[in-house]
Amino acid sequence: MTLRATFLGTSGAVPTTERNPSAVFVNREGESLLFDCGEGTQRQMMRYGTGFGVSAVFLTHIHGDHVFGLPGLLQTWGFQDRTDPLAVYTPRGTRSDVTTLITACGGDLPYPVHVTEVAAGETAYEGADYDVVTFATDHRTRSVGYALIEDQRKGRFRRERAEELGVPPGPAFGRLHEGETVELDDGTVVEPDQVVGPARRGRRVVYTGDTGPTDSVVDAAAQADLLVHDATFAESEVDRARETGHATAREAGEIAQQAGVRRLALTHVSPRYAGDASVLAAEAREAFDGDVVLARDGLEVEVPLPD
Amino acid sequence: MTLRATFLGTSGAVPTTERNPSAVFVNREGESLLFDCGEGTQRQMMRYGTGFGVSAVFLTHIHGDHVFGLPGLLQTWGFQDRTDPLAVYTPRGTRSDVTTLITACGGDLPYPVHVTEVAAGETAYEGADYDVVTFATDHRTRSVGYALIEDQRKGRFRRERAEELGVPPGPAFGRLHEGETVELDDGTVVEPDQVVGPARRGRRVVYTGDTGPTDSVVDAAAQADLLVHDATFAESEVDRARETGHATAREAGEIAQQAGVRRLALTHVSPRYAGDASVLAAEAREAFDGDVVLARDGLEVEVPLPD
Repeated sequence: MTLRATFLGTSGAVPTTERNPSAVFVNREGESLLFDCGEGTQRQMMRYGTGFGVSAVFLTHIHGDHVFGLPGLLQTWGFQDRTDPLAVYTPRGTRSDVTTLITACGGDLPYPVHVTEVAAGETAYEGADYDVVTFATDHRTRSVGYALIEDQRKGRFRRERAEELGVPPGPAFGRLHEGETVELDDGTVVEPDQVVGPARRGRRVVYTGDTGPTDSVVDAAAQADLLVHDATFAESEVDRARETGHATAREAGEIAQQAGVRRLALTHVSPRYAGDASVLAAEAREAFDGDVVLARDGLEVEVPLPD
Repeated sequence: MTLRATFLGTSGAVPTTERNPSAVFVNREGESLLFDCGEGTQRQMMRYGTGFGVSAVFLTHIHGDHVFGLPGLLQTWGFQDRTDPLAVYTPRGTRSDVTTLITACGGDLPYPVHVTEVAAGETAYEGADYDVVTFATDHRTRSVGYALIEDQRKGRFRRERAEELGVPPGPAFGRLHEGETVELDDGTVVEPDQVVGPARRGRRVVYTGDTGPTDSVVDAAAQADLLVHDATFAESEVDRARETGHATAREAGEIAQQAGVRRLALTHVSPRYAGDASVLAAEAREAFDGDVVLARDGLEVEVPLPD
């Protein structure tokens, strides 16, 4: 069951030759979601071969470096004769700005676009067996983060235990795994919890967009398999981070540590680290015991099933 | 006296991994002008090292692939603390659309932006010793092309002839070259036209933006040093070119031939030629005796002084 994040843009507010403005493409078993859409995102999708079958776009906030790729991408979908509706989620109070942006200089699109405002704590989107829920971030503007949360998976089926209890291999195994009680030929009744382990949690991928360090991210990212966090600055620029509503890489590491995250990806890298951004990963590692990845454009991060 | 065009985007309406949407950067002796501004132009400026000191942007029409790079570029100029005013020229009837685009989701800019509508046949912009004038194009929407036309240069100073006439080397040479009459010590009067050749034409660079073949381009491009012409399609797609208001490469060649152009650059290449666009150059060469260049992103074309 594929779950993969592809970083299409990892720059701070201004791009560099190496980093495009913000966008993260998430592919879950062939279903594709786009989180933020900085200028040039459509070409990054081509460059990194993500495909164009996106069902929903999730905007963390409407600063230009997170949204200016939308009108071009929507236009290209039009040239591709897209007919599937597109869902766009954006923080409360920003719908009209988004609508203005995507209709400015734009012709009629051959598919419907539904722009929906979301507030923190809502289920924005229901996928096949996952939800995308919103959480509060702190960027001094209308903003939310998004968490992709898979449904619980069934517990493991303990085949040996079932055989010990006399359950014949075959359909009865499946019925028990699905939660049904089974009566054997000798009248013995076998309950599912005798042969099925506890339900296992699904995966959780959390994307903050731009934010300073805040407890709401700790809550949203609890036990996340992947936390993609604002890490615009090194610790030497912590004052600048406070002024601009961003986090340092160390702060991102502290959030990840508190949340018990498995893997932390640092993104929204300031152009001042264009030559060498390794200080960001190093500082995050000082605060976080888990795996730290410094995102770069084109990086694919696979999120394996836990246990 | 540098005059150089740098192709920042050479794709048709949809970009490819090799070609960004339309933009041409022109540097004339340190002064920089931008013609069209497709999505991603700011990053192309970084990639190809054009610098960011643009004084004016000239839009041929407001289809997305020619303008969606504007809001991001304007925002980046803001982050760079630009204070110089920016002039944007756009076809008559499109000012409000341009204004909507550049203010959608955009914050306040720390420099003034003046958006001016232009019609065919106007002088849009007066440079130090050149003008940018508009001409009609045929793209089934409000559109214009732009011609950068240098002022005439002084004629050549014929030093040997001046010496034959007894003019002493020194300031008198300069005064004659500037057009003044000089009286020698022996009373001889020397007129400028005795020692200065005819005024020489300045250079002319012509950019059509999107257009089908049309006589107004032949007129505007007469004797141009460089004609940058729509060449979206090969001749096999001529019907499609007519439907969409574009030119074939052969038609671009025919226009260049009629106009007596020195060099023709083909741009706005349809993605269908992403693998190999050489057919476009070949077909243009069948119709045009001059130099044909198939534009690619990052290509710099120097325009030498004539004679």
